Amino acid sequence: MATIYQHSTLAALMAGLLGGTTTVGELLTHGNTGIGTMHGVDGEVIILNGQVYQATADGQVHHITDKTATLPFATLHQEEAATATPITVQDATMQTMNMVNEQHLTNNFSSIVLQGTFEHVQVRVAPKATEPFPSLLDLTEQQPIFEKNDIAGTLVGYYSPALYHGVVAAGWHIHFLSDDRQFAGHVLAFNAQTLTGTLTAFADYQLHLPIDNVAFREHELDMTNLSAGITAAEGGAE
Amino acid sequence: MATIYQHSTLAALMAGLLGGTTTVGELLTHGNTGIGTMHGVDGEVIILNGQVYQATADGQVHHITDKTATLPFATLHQEEAATATPITVQDATMQTMNMVNEQHLTNNFSSIVLQGTFEHVQVRVAPKATEPFPSLLDLTEQQPIFEKNDIAGTLVGYYSPALYHGVVAAGWHIHFLSDDRQFAGHVLAFNAQTLTGTLTAFADYQLHLPIDNVAFREHELDMTNLSAGITAAEGGAE
Repeated sequence: MATIYQHSTLAALMAGLLGGTTTVGELLTHGNTGIGTMHGVDGEVIILNGQVYQATADGQVHHITDKTATLPFATLHQEEAATATPITVQDATMQTMNMVNEQHLTNNFSSIVLQGTFEHVQVRVAPKATEPFPSLLDLTEQQPIFEKNDIAGTLVGYYSPALYHGVVAAGWHIHFLSDDRQFAGHVLAFNAQTLTGTLTAFADYQLHLPIDNVAFREHELDMTNLSAGITAAEGGAE
Repeated sequence: MATIYQHSTLAALMAGLLGGTTTVGELLTHGNTGIGTMHGVDGEVIILNGQVYQATADGQVHHITDKTATLPFATLHQEEAATATPITVQDATMQTMNMVNEQHLTNNFSSIVLQGTFEHVQVRVAPKATEPFPSLLDLTEQQPIFEKNDIAGTLVGYYSPALYHGVVAAGWHIHFLSDDRQFAGHVLAFNAQTLTGTLTAFADYQLHLPIDNVAFREHELDMTNLSAGITAAEGGAE
């Protein structure tokens, strides 16, 4: 059975815990495929075949080889034939993604890894925050948006059920990386005639909390404003 | 680092998924200490030293040795000296329990295993449902309550942060088992002069979902009424 691994919570980011609390090296022991962000919510991370790429707010993409680089939040899994289901998606858009998991996968976590040539991809990239860190909501009020037409690349994304909204953003959360490793980010919109890849349904959700981190242990949850704040910051659930 | 293992979700129970979806044998591979309920929400389960006990609504306690017996919901962990912190609680009550984890443990899952002689223990025991299963809320409207004075026994319980309310009941969820194995249940109230045992703080939360179960895959979440329903059924968060 496949396991999805998540480091920290979206609620902690919302509370301004934007400092790195795990390392690239530690994360890669839990999977070879995933998404996340670097220390200070510096950009959008996409992990593919065990390689870590970071899109930054200046529009660049960096290959992260420093195993000691830290991240405040990440989700990943071990992509393997034994647990992945091959899928082909025609006329793929964010809306199509919502159909991918309508087939009785709405109560569990799922991942997609989809490759192809995209007619259009629109991404945003979180700008790096400096200490004292703002909340994720304040940080993400102004984020650069980048677009490309006719670009070959890969989508890596996760579906989280509504039940877990707050721990993570409910719905699909998808990052893009171009084949030439020059264009990447958090996907806002895309369309592609045909994408092929895999869908993995996870029976196990392993949530790792940075309980050795004082700020994590001591932060106060604002449950009242959490859901609306996440929707504003991440474009989540509703 | 210690791991807490949970099978299925409280939201699934609320939706009426009361049928067993894991076995005693499978659960015991994930820990030797825990709480849960049997197929049909038949009573209150407490797992201690790898032994499984079930309190039923007729006031009896059964030692479950059948490894194929099924459960719809359970939480457990491996109790061990390497990860547990020895604690002593004076003038212990449910209110004292809320103080146990005020020391910066409110953002992660914790467990307690506490032994001693109790001046008073009040428990309730869920009555077994038959198919077609009602929702947990309907089932728990009428539950027998049992009380004992001057009884030696053990509390096994888990603290879950408010962020996870719905996946599990937020706050403390504690079961009791007497030393003579004749009295057990879901703890509503207790007081004891001195209890000794352990507190374990979990860095990892492993949630296992029964995705091979059609009813689990297909059930619809009622997020609007979930929180209030759980509070009514479990006496949870607020």
